[in-house]
Amino acid sequence: MLIVMKADATEREVENVVRIVTELGLRAHPLPGAQRTAIGITGNHGAVDATRFETLPGVAEALRVSKPYKLITLDLKPEKTIIRVGDATIGGDELALIAGPCAIESRAQAFAIAEIVRRSGARFFRGGAFKPRTSPYAFQGLGEEGLRILADVREAYGLKIVTEAMDEHGLDLVEKYGDVVQIGARNMQNYSLLRCAGRSRLPILLKRGLSATLDEWLLAAEYIMAEGNYNVILCERGIRTFAQHTRNTLDLAAIPAVRRVSHLPVVMDPSHGTGKNYMVTPLARAGVAVGCDGLIIEVHDQPERALSDGAQALTLEQYEQLVPEVRAIHEVITPAHVA
Amino acid sequence: MLIVMKADATEREVENVVRIVTELGLRAHPLPGAQRTAIGITGNHGAVDATRFETLPGVAEALRVSKPYKLITLDLKPEKTIIRVGDATIGGDELALIAGPCAIESRAQAFAIAEIVRRSGARFFRGGAFKPRTSPYAFQGLGEEGLRILADVREAYGLKIVTEAMDEHGLDLVEKYGDVVQIGARNMQNYSLLRCAGRSRLPILLKRGLSATLDEWLLAAEYIMAEGNYNVILCERGIRTFAQHTRNTLDLAAIPAVRRVSHLPVVMDPSHGTGKNYMVTPLARAGVAVGCDGLIIEVHDQPERALSDGAQALTLEQYEQLVPEVRAIHEVITPAHVA
Amino acid sequence: MLIVMKADATEREVENVVRIVTELGLRAHPLPGAQRTAIGITGNHGAVDATRFETLPGVAEALRVSKPYKLITLDLKPEKTIIRVGDATIGGDELALIAGPCAIESRAQAFAIAEIVRRSGARFFRGGAFKPRTSPYAFQGLGEEGLRILADVREAYGLKIVTEAMDEHGLDLVEKYGDVVQIGARNMQNYSLLRCAGRSRLPILLKRGLSATLDEWLLAAEYIMAEGNYNVILCERGIRTFAQHTRNTLDLAAIPAVRRVSHLPVVMDPSHGTGKNYMVTPLARAGVAVGCDGLIIEVHDQPERALSDGAQALTLEQYEQLVPEVRAIHEVITPAHVA
Amino acid sequence: MLIVMKADATEREVENVVRIVTELGLRAHPLPGAQRTAIGITGNHGAVDATRFETLPGVAEALRVSKPYKLITLDLKPEKTIIRVGDATIGGDELALIAGPCAIESRAQAFAIAEIVRRSGARFFRGGAFKPRTSPYAFQGLGEEGLRILADVREAYGLKIVTEAMDEHGLDLVEKYGDVVQIGARNMQNYSLLRCAGRSRLPILLKRGLSATLDEWLLAAEYIMAEGNYNVILCERGIRTFAQHTRNTLDLAAIPAVRRVSHLPVVMDPSHGTGKNYMVTPLARAGVAVGCDGLIIEVHDQPERALSDGAQALTLEQYEQLVPEVRAIHEVITPAHVA
Repeated sequence: MLIVMKADATEREVENVVRIVTELGLRAHPLPGAQRTAIGITGNHGAVDATRFETLPGVAEALRVSKPYKLITLDLKPEKTIIRVGDATIGGDELALIAGPCAIESRAQAFAIAEIVRRSGARFFRGGAFKPRTSPYAFQGLGEEGLRILADVREAYGLKIVTEAMDEHGLDLVEKYGDVVQIGARNMQNYSLLRCAGRSRLPILLKRGLSATLDEWLLAAEYIMAEGNYNVILCERGIRTFAQHTRNTLDLAAIPAVRRVSHLPVVMDPSHGTGKNYMVTPLARAGVAVGCDGLIIEVHDQPERALSDGAQALTLEQYEQLVPEVRAIHEVITPAHVA
Repeated sequence: MLIVMKADATEREVENVVRIVTELGLRAHPLPGAQRTAIGITGNHGAVDATRFETLPGVAEALRVSKPYKLITLDLKPEKTIIRVGDATIGGDELALIAGPCAIESRAQAFAIAEIVRRSGARFFRGGAFKPRTSPYAFQGLGEEGLRILADVREAYGLKIVTEAMDEHGLDLVEKYGDVVQIGARNMQNYSLLRCAGRSRLPILLKRGLSATLDEWLLAAEYIMAEGNYNVILCERGIRTFAQHTRNTLDLAAIPAVRRVSHLPVVMDPSHGTGKNYMVTPLARAGVAVGCDGLIIEVHDQPERALSDGAQALTLEQYEQLVPEVRAIHEVITPAHVA
Repeated sequence: MLIVMKADATEREVENVVRIVTELGLRAHPLPGAQRTAIGITGNHGAVDATRFETLPGVAEALRVSKPYKLITLDLKPEKTIIRVGDATIGGDELALIAGPCAIESRAQAFAIAEIVRRSGARFFRGGAFKPRTSPYAFQGLGEEGLRILADVREAYGLKIVTEAMDEHGLDLVEKYGDVVQIGARNMQNYSLLRCAGRSRLPILLKRGLSATLDEWLLAAEYIMAEGNYNVILCERGIRTFAQHTRNTLDLAAIPAVRRVSHLPVVMDPSHGTGKNYMVTPLARAGVAVGCDGLIIEVHDQPERALSDGAQALTLEQYEQLVPEVRAIHEVITPAHVA
Repeated sequence: MLIVMKADATEREVENVVRIVTELGLRAHPLPGAQRTAIGITGNHGAVDATRFETLPGVAEALRVSKPYKLITLDLKPEKTIIRVGDATIGGDELALIAGPCAIESRAQAFAIAEIVRRSGARFFRGGAFKPRTSPYAFQGLGEEGLRILADVREAYGLKIVTEAMDEHGLDLVEKYGDVVQIGARNMQNYSLLRCAGRSRLPILLKRGLSATLDEWLLAAEYIMAEGNYNVILCERGIRTFAQHTRNTLDLAAIPAVRRVSHLPVVMDPSHGTGKNYMVTPLARAGVAVGCDGLIIEVHDQPERALSDGAQALTLEQYEQLVPEVRAIHEVITPAHVA
């Protein structure tokens, strides 16, 4: 941590800060500069709340230097984490494709889509049984009946099931029927849920919150890992900005930013990230080009009749065109990306 | 809803949209314009997901016109809601003052602060027993022990207790010890928690999420009300923007915006909304001037030693100066505001 | 400046950074910590571009500590600047009211509005002759003819004229006819224009850019002052955020933030800041409560027929109600604010 | 345009809106719905300022439907624009590479970088002679001397010169020495400069403003085209958001969004778009994958000694690795993208 004194701070004010820092068991290093004095702080084992010093007399500002996370870092584990779900992987050499409808609406719908997903060579099937909807009056998902359909899709097609849990009860049910638990963007800082997820035996796919900074997202993963579950997959799905031509703004720079500090795999969701059918394919390509470990793609056999998020679902034909394109880009960047 | 066709949309494409709309049991009104045709849709009783029409051939965009909420609206209940907590109110003529520390740290701390809060004439005491913290390694609150201290503060000073619940279990405990349940910004779209809150017998203070639009915030209130609990207090506490000179950007225009559509009372939290001690007083004044029904203010007897959010807490002295100022402004605007 | 090394940075990498810093004529202070080494830099007389060090081997990040501005600071000039325009002031004890239409549309319109503005006791009349419009097909203002009308308003009512210049030529004309030159939000970083403004003999009202940070805004003022014109008035007029219930989000916390570092006066524009007629009065009240030195208010005699920004203009009646309210709030906070 | 009446609007209020609309020479189409009446407006030839109707009694809101631009649209010109600069093109089959330093610092620097740029097969050289800097005390560029060096680079290497003009005077000079005029992000709404650019004989590379919506950006291009210069290249270079792990947030979805409405070519600047050396290569790959017509890349022979933006410049080696990667991705997507 670094405490920056005001230009007109007195000797006494500097001494007072040094004294308080020392009383807290830390070490203070005053650095007189041309314009003002700064005081470096060392000796802290975890993160210290820097801002508390900002109200002391003579202090201009306090900057945190140490990062508050540990388990997610490359410092702790320099090799990349590969999540294994049966014989499929996320984070390894293979590009992970997770495809399916936004919500499970019926057995017929799920099977029609799963057929195409399986045929594309994807290993994961997504579909919501519990849907977090902005309005209480919108379709909320089929609940456990939806999960049973998903389990049957797995049985029939050998696809691994990725599905969302919105609370502890839902998490128990997903553990019973699914393979990977999704924590949605709106729950990224639902710490009670993150702690439950940390005690699950399944991998957790953690979506970035709409207004989450990189540190907040990584700390949400840290919450899960701190409970003992190290199988966390990060998912970039767009952030909220002033831009209105998309539902959210996909922040692709988050992928190299995560890579630089963390060993966790990171995937991207161009469907929720754009909210527009015609943008999904170009952004999916971009996601692979930037170095994602996988993609989550919404596919629907009848998008114009979908009970939720129809505007962003690919048709089966569009999805079938997408897959070879993103595989080809993955091929191109793989050596560069590994290097 | 309004569907806007592309400039080069064919007659057939317009007819196709009209047909699909009609099949869904709605009525379509084509409006040919100089440059393009628009199609008005009527007959829907709830909100229709407009975006699903965007992928139909010839459609440029689809605009939702009807608002998706009901219970929160002035259309439904033209007179303002007044929340009664014992003999105190929020939303009536009185300016509601809710003051106290960010987190309950000890009995001594709580009582030292409550003494001053009581003396200022405030009717509500705030303080967290369960703290949602960005890092799993930060102080998480005293839990039920903190709630017991709060109950003792009520006993000793007659202050009503406002405190946060982060999950169903916490909500049960707050019902046991407190008077008003706070739902924090991070949980504003934790729909499972909102539904539980909707079944509580206590009023709910619902903080706006960091990136919540006005509609999303009002729909979160609608979730609670749809379960039968009509005692909801909205709380503006700042949104996330690019600006870095404050922790969040207080969106004071949200207050008249809420007033224009909803009967629910709305308060403001200048402490979390700015994150800086020296900004709390001016922004508290602004909150009252803009028409808030109350303020939530963090106060601490020793801010530099606070276990959380020390940088934004007022000292006891600063708090005591603040109260008469905001009361005087409330006085000035009251007739105007009522008019 | 502070350079933070990676946790696994080697002794050599630290030495290399120290060597480069020293070669640049600065002094390096290595601070070994429990987890990583930080290197404090002193001896720089201006701001050093910190980020250039970020690509050196072993460096995690580089943080700038010194602020890059000088002339705007309280460090340089501890007493507040009062701008004098004839016998009127901005920044002194008086609340400066600057009112008038968005654009000058005709002599009749300007005089009808000026009559009411004068009667309210305001000292400044605003109105655009050159209008920066998002579309090239929208009304662009009356040009020099508009300035002549403004000069006649001054003559007739004794009001000081505040009007925008969009380029060097416009600035020459405003110097000829007006009293205060407005630089609009879109031109806040038009550095050629700022330099011209710095050579003007008139005070400059500098609007904050839609996405300007506090530092960028203050540095734009610094550009003007660096050319020798010290009469700069800052104007908060809303920033661009995700929120859609207003045209912009007024950032009222910017007012105390400016006060803390700068001696320049700061006013607020609730008309452009909200874009909605019904929000102007409550936000004007809030602006005064937060400590602004003045308000810029759009008033129109026939808002529904205005050639630009009709939705945000107050009617003459609304304006006449507003003035005593904001004056009363100014009265309430004046002692507190001075203290 | 669509005017939405309040749920409790009276028959008279609806009639009043219809009357005013009719008086303005437009046609009103009232559409009574289950909850409220909407009024469609047709007959307008340009855009009507919708918001002016919002203050009429009984009106809830007014939505603009027609887009305000013409010349940039695919409606007007369905085939994509290809900009020809001598024998090089932007917008055709070829991926346009525009590389060079942020600022021209010396002849030696410019030539050392141009050598590598030429060898990579790029056709365009970039470098600033006039630098818009946030601080008046930062290096502002070599001015005309820098332009002369650029002209010599063209002479020596046959590269086309892309360089920024900040005002009318600079534009005259760039016309004398350069091949493509860049309008920077800060000047995107400097309408006086846009009009000058519209009278230039050179193509204009128009960077998106930091907080520009898609419509505002396209309207800035419309300003240039409305003066007669149809050779406009759009450049996405990142927007300002809350995210702090990058200098700006690259909005890659803007590329397909532009494609959907406009015939103009669009390139991307991953250097300014991220501000971090290690992110430039992955984001450059993503830019090509999403369908950009070209890339602007900052390259420096000694990034740690650069006079501006050193942190984001690629080294010569990094640049030489990047080129074959982005070419390979361009190859992969070309058929898909054309289709």
